[in-house]
Amino acid sequence: MMQNLSPSSVSAPAATMTKAQRFLAACRRQPVDYTPVWLMRQAGRYMSEYRALREHYTILEIIKSPELACLVTLQPIQAFDLDAAIIFADILPPLQGMGLSLEFVKGEGPVIHDPLRTPASIEALQVRPPEETLSFTLDAIRLTRQALDPLDIPLIGFSGAPFTLAAYAVEGGGSRNHVLVKSLMMSDPASWALLMEKLSEVVGHYLLAQARAGAQVLQLFDSWVGQLSPEDYRRYVLPHSRRALEIAGEAGVPIIHFGTDTGTMLPLLRAAGGDVIGVDWRIPLDTAWAQLGPDVAIQGNLDPVSLFAPWPALQERTQFVLDEAQRAGRHGHIFNVGHGILPHTPVDNVRRLVDFVHSYTAAQKAGAA
Amino acid sequence: MMQNLSPSSVSAPAATMTKAQRFLAACRRQPVDYTPVWLMRQAGRYMSEYRALREHYTILEIIKSPELACLVTLQPIQAFDLDAAIIFADILPPLQGMGLSLEFVKGEGPVIHDPLRTPASIEALQVRPPEETLSFTLDAIRLTRQALDPLDIPLIGFSGAPFTLAAYAVEGGGSRNHVLVKSLMMSDPASWALLMEKLSEVVGHYLLAQARAGAQVLQLFDSWVGQLSPEDYRRYVLPHSRRALEIAGEAGVPIIHFGTDTGTMLPLLRAAGGDVIGVDWRIPLDTAWAQLGPDVAIQGNLDPVSLFAPWPALQERTQFVLDEAQRAGRHGHIFNVGHGILPHTPVDNVRRLVDFVHSYTAAQKAGAA
Repeated sequence: MMQNLSPSSVSAPAATMTKAQRFLAACRRQPVDYTPVWLMRQAGRYMSEYRALREHYTILEIIKSPELACLVTLQPIQAFDLDAAIIFADILPPLQGMGLSLEFVKGEGPVIHDPLRTPASIEALQVRPPEETLSFTLDAIRLTRQALDPLDIPLIGFSGAPFTLAAYAVEGGGSRNHVLVKSLMMSDPASWALLMEKLSEVVGHYLLAQARAGAQVLQLFDSWVGQLSPEDYRRYVLPHSRRALEIAGEAGVPIIHFGTDTGTMLPLLRAAGGDVIGVDWRIPLDTAWAQLGPDVAIQGNLDPVSLFAPWPALQERTQFVLDEAQRAGRHGHIFNVGHGILPHTPVDNVRRLVDFVHSYTAAQKAGAA
Repeated sequence: MMQNLSPSSVSAPAATMTKAQRFLAACRRQPVDYTPVWLMRQAGRYMSEYRALREHYTILEIIKSPELACLVTLQPIQAFDLDAAIIFADILPPLQGMGLSLEFVKGEGPVIHDPLRTPASIEALQVRPPEETLSFTLDAIRLTRQALDPLDIPLIGFSGAPFTLAAYAVEGGGSRNHVLVKSLMMSDPASWALLMEKLSEVVGHYLLAQARAGAQVLQLFDSWVGQLSPEDYRRYVLPHSRRALEIAGEAGVPIIHFGTDTGTMLPLLRAAGGDVIGVDWRIPLDTAWAQLGPDVAIQGNLDPVSLFAPWPALQERTQFVLDEAQRAGRHGHIFNVGHGILPHTPVDNVRRLVDFVHSYTAAQKAGAA
């Protein structure tokens, strides 16, 4: 299997760094030979290899089998010249570990069957060590590192952030307006604080355990935080994200702090923590980076719908992002989509995107672009 | 019926302006006795009077009956001390007038049964005068003005903006990621331009006709525009919103230009047009106003979920917005929620909110706050 990894690398520009060196250097805002690229949800439904496996296993079966999770983690690494792998998992199993009942319902997405609707249900939430509740993902990380190490490809571990987990736990699933979770936050500050304190402990220790199991980089996903006003984020979320990031930071590996729709609260996300801030396409990359300040790297920010466009349009859009990063005049850009790759994304466009990011930025950095 | 209007006005601070004077002065950035307030979707499901009517009529039956639309428009005016009425209508009937098949499906929301999926379907879209296709709303405006004029309460007419209408027309309904509409925009610029040109003509003339039928203020709703990057907005949407606003502007009445999730593109919305820019809660009101520049009024921006909180929390949140407006040190704030009032919103909180905006800003303007 190993010789099948990175089949596209023949077309890559001459590399002077391994993928792990490149990715970690970008996280630390050090010079790189070309811009590293990975894609949120790079393992998933848009790949036929993944869909074939899903005919036999549910999402939770894959996540809970270290061998299957490892296999799926490697699928996009085998197909594309990506600079990092991300462990195949989901943001919601930590809620299961706290005592909630999680199911992925076909066509509906994740459902929490016993959502938090009373102070007592929040008090009953358990804070247990990830080695007890999430050992399958820790084992998957150990196994995947064995496959990736010979190729010096780094592995990213991740967790949902306290607010995003609270949103699922209170709403019981996805939500358009997040009325229930925001109402709890606005109406019962004591229960809210207890919930967020428990979640920040669980999230922080889960991330820390992933790093100790072998993840060389961590990402905190605060997917729904852009539903909040900046003032609500500052008051009700920031301290808890900061706590989770402080615990995770004990591992000493770089941390990416990602949210969508955060264009009006970037300095607050920065204040919560992270070595890299992930942003979506709603804010120009250079504007975002200027707002974040000099001492942080940036990840993003192609609109994932761009991958449905014909190659010339996709190339132009990718170049636009890379030119913004170049214009910022700093080291420390990791190219990514601004939110996860969507189902039905054409695989060939993913391949061309990854290769183009490499060749274009190699030329940029050589002064030829 | 007339003597039942504005029952809350007994608790209002001493007014030195009629509601129409106050509202139009705010639109024009002139001094007011206190801050005018209305609420997007102020007529709707959260009111028992509306739900009672909906047991007998569908949404489209109400919209297409001038008498029923007038009745529903007046329901919140009778219940609360609001400073403006907004004609009861929906943003989607203009699509029906262009030849598409629209239905409001219970539990699903609006559905376009024949969404635009081919260039030919866009070429087939008809651009007809609103007097032919949307006369029911124009008649409802005429009727409602007769009821409101004795009370000097202004009436707002509105339309969906070209992008938001394109989103519904292409997706066929609501959408989480807007893959189809954005793919069309990115992949087929010629079809996109044709679609947006047709929509801007329809929207512009519909707004103009509403003003000529008696609407004293107009609002353009670009509810989904925040799904776009600022660059895509500038390139693919701004010229068409500007065109619609130019046509509507011939009426000479103030125009409110509203979008959600626009915190990173406010100068572009401003450039497209409007005397008042409506913003949601994701950006502090004073920050938004500073970005918009000196020559425009602002509308917003309470998170509508705040109305589910107990009164002390709702009051604090309302005061926060009003203090931001005061801090901006300008005339021209219209208080509103940042997006429509949600179903199940407690009616008593709506009443207290409206009265508090009046009394608090009257004191602010008297220099006592």
